[in-house]
Amino acid sequence: MNFNRHHLLGMKGLTKEEIETILTTAESLKEISFRDIKKVPTLRGKTVVNFFHEPSTRTRTSFEIAAKRLSADTVSLSAGTSSLVKGETLVDTAKNLEAMNPDIIVMRHSMAGAPHLLSRMVKPSILNAGDGMHEHPTQALLDLLTIREKKGTIEGLKVSIIGDIAHSRVARSNIIGLKTMRAQVTVAGPPTMIPPFIETMGVEVASNLQEAIVGADVIMMLRVQLERQKQMLFPSLREYSRFFGLTVDLLKKAKRDVIIMHPGPINRGVEMQSEVADGPYSVILDQVTNGVAVRMALLYLLLGGNKSEMDN
Amino acid sequence: MNFNRHHLLGMKGLTKEEIETILTTAESLKEISFRDIKKVPTLRGKTVVNFFHEPSTRTRTSFEIAAKRLSADTVSLSAGTSSLVKGETLVDTAKNLEAMNPDIIVMRHSMAGAPHLLSRMVKPSILNAGDGMHEHPTQALLDLLTIREKKGTIEGLKVSIIGDIAHSRVARSNIIGLKTMRAQVTVAGPPTMIPPFIETMGVEVASNLQEAIVGADVIMMLRVQLERQKQMLFPSLREYSRFFGLTVDLLKKAKRDVIIMHPGPINRGVEMQSEVADGPYSVILDQVTNGVAVRMALLYLLLGGNKSEMDN
Amino acid sequence: MNFNRHHLLGMKGLTKEEIETILTTAESLKEISFRDIKKVPTLRGKTVVNFFHEPSTRTRTSFEIAAKRLSADTVSLSAGTSSLVKGETLVDTAKNLEAMNPDIIVMRHSMAGAPHLLSRMVKPSILNAGDGMHEHPTQALLDLLTIREKKGTIEGLKVSIIGDIAHSRVARSNIIGLKTMRAQVTVAGPPTMIPPFIETMGVEVASNLQEAIVGADVIMMLRVQLERQKQMLFPSLREYSRFFGLTVDLLKKAKRDVIIMHPGPINRGVEMQSEVADGPYSVILDQVTNGVAVRMALLYLLLGGNKSEMDN
Repeated sequence: MNFNRHHLLGMKGLTKEEIETILTTAESLKEISFRDIKKVPTLRGKTVVNFFHEPSTRTRTSFEIAAKRLSADTVSLSAGTSSLVKGETLVDTAKNLEAMNPDIIVMRHSMAGAPHLLSRMVKPSILNAGDGMHEHPTQALLDLLTIREKKGTIEGLKVSIIGDIAHSRVARSNIIGLKTMRAQVTVAGPPTMIPPFIETMGVEVASNLQEAIVGADVIMMLRVQLERQKQMLFPSLREYSRFFGLTVDLLKKAKRDVIIMHPGPINRGVEMQSEVADGPYSVILDQVTNGVAVRMALLYLLLGGNKSEMDN
Repeated sequence: MNFNRHHLLGMKGLTKEEIETILTTAESLKEISFRDIKKVPTLRGKTVVNFFHEPSTRTRTSFEIAAKRLSADTVSLSAGTSSLVKGETLVDTAKNLEAMNPDIIVMRHSMAGAPHLLSRMVKPSILNAGDGMHEHPTQALLDLLTIREKKGTIEGLKVSIIGDIAHSRVARSNIIGLKTMRAQVTVAGPPTMIPPFIETMGVEVASNLQEAIVGADVIMMLRVQLERQKQMLFPSLREYSRFFGLTVDLLKKAKRDVIIMHPGPINRGVEMQSEVADGPYSVILDQVTNGVAVRMALLYLLLGGNKSEMDN
Repeated sequence: MNFNRHHLLGMKGLTKEEIETILTTAESLKEISFRDIKKVPTLRGKTVVNFFHEPSTRTRTSFEIAAKRLSADTVSLSAGTSSLVKGETLVDTAKNLEAMNPDIIVMRHSMAGAPHLLSRMVKPSILNAGDGMHEHPTQALLDLLTIREKKGTIEGLKVSIIGDIAHSRVARSNIIGLKTMRAQVTVAGPPTMIPPFIETMGVEVASNLQEAIVGADVIMMLRVQLERQKQMLFPSLREYSRFFGLTVDLLKKAKRDVIIMHPGPINRGVEMQSEVADGPYSVILDQVTNGVAVRMALLYLLLGGNKSEMDN
């Protein structure tokens, strides 16, 4: 076991060994959620603050359940109710939270780099739950866990990521994590959604969806963020789904044991047909289950579970 | 004891024995809320998700307190913060929640039948906390508990329900429950608020409020939903309260031991005079106390408390 | 130890001995927040309802953390989600909460006197977390704790309070508490913000900021409530900060061991320069830490911790 970090800010900088420690810890904690009594006393007396400047019921719920299954106390501050934030700088808000002695601040923020800034200013662990268009490391880790679980390994796999690569923190964190784990990554999407110089990340660009699908072990569909549609990155949803929506027909060209992932929530009929989302290759709900496990692992590792275990 | 259900979707279909089991369980759990230490470890390690698509502080608070007094972990998703729901079908939202392994989903939804739909799609227990204009079974059960507590029995009692019978899930669930328990039910209200063919439910229709009151053991006043006033179901609040508001004067024609119920929140001066709401016949606050007890009983019974007890 | 109150409604009426009991209890509970396992079982099985009719993430979070570190169960009702309140009188809402058998209702309300009204109507303890422009006793107590901690005593100290004295519940509660503890209190602010007859509270009025600063042991800056700016109590923020903003230069005229306080959140550059807020005299974050300790102490004392200790 090899994990001595105090913060988890992104996939960038994590070593292969660290990622493996997180995944292995998650695997061993996962079964707690399947017990009759879904709770261990590991983090009793720890205070977890969920500080969600951007709304996200899905991720917040996953963190809250993860913390409670480890017996930590949780306090949630959300954007809507967070008068804490009004007229106060982000650093002042964080300093105020710090003064209440939480052990960890799980933080989502619309501003890229916000968790990194705070990690230099406050003592509690900072766990990035998504910052702007930058990183979403817990999503990447739950995706890696799901791939490893289904495929046995990550190294050498061909993973294709489809959609708005340029503006997706899910894509960015996954690309970094997958490359660290030595997977081959291909991306595909409308030209306006493929960042220039993406090849410098060690990624191949497919010229269309079919090219990305053929031979892929893993197909990762990104969510179309409908609110971004106003920016005219693609002509229409209908166009998008015609060229980049996954259909049963297209899937026939994929490997027999391909798995299909999506970070949710799905826009059915846009990123993929319902038959694909609910079909035998889909591991979308496994991802959600693994999300709780990965978050339990990170809370455990960041709060020193690992260290104290080594001490004994 | 006779309770082997996995879901509680409505009063419809519950047998007299099942209702009696719920009420008896609630009666025995009720005293926990009066202890100095208001907590038993019964549901430790169980995860209760309160999924309130319609806002309802009152009912959500009651469920949250009930769950905590049984030591369950609670996570609340409310309509306001529930980005989970945006752009996602209800079934997908539920499937996602299911993937986080909750034991029970307590659910309020504006759409009639939503809990029934989900109960066929997901594994955790579904507990209906109110679905559209359809059912609100925990309200009916807490009402039944209050009646049984105050009157010793429900069978044979004359219960009059006053108000908007046609659009009230409280009325519907109560009528079903009361008939199952063999009470006589009379309804009264403005003609636009009495559903046609209501007699097929075994209910009598009184032609005015006084007729409904005379001889009644229980008078159940429904809340006037002021937001519905726009639909012109009655000419004005003043007209409504003149014909269907309970006054001290009218109460003189009721039985000496009548009890007066209201699901809350009361519009004082509309459904009844303040003197009636706060008077000696009112059991409105007993209903609230019994609400916690009934919800504790349902969490306990649905989560298998009963079964494990039988196993031992 | 001397504390037999059931409610904490304000600083008014608290004796010097009672305040000392609260501060000493807070001091002894404070170290729990610095432990590795930040939790004691003292209030296990107690139900704390946080009823915040006015939004306040900061104070609510502090109370929630305080309650959880003492193992109490917490339920939060906030203005946004509180349909409980709509169309219902405040007393009815409180009576409904009471019927769910909470042990304590922590309450913030925009209406001065709301907690006092409820304390006469319901059985659970009422803890005032701020009522209109009236009182904010937990803020005053955490301020007193901070002063005592930093200065060893409160008696005889010269405390200057700067800002909108007339409309600040923080100022009012602090003046009452400081006078009870036999401090000397001076106030300063724009003429429209100094209440007439303030001298009857035993307070001196300084004619300008410098006069208030010279010789002060404690400088307490009040928050400028920007939303009140519309009422034209002062010509502009720029004017306000020019005459009543604390600067590094001005601080040179203060005592060498002065401490600077602010209830937060700070408007940097308005009430004080950033260099002052972050400088060596500032105890602003100590106030936040002490906020958790004082709230733990009050929950403990109001819920009878003190009495049971004496019984043993």
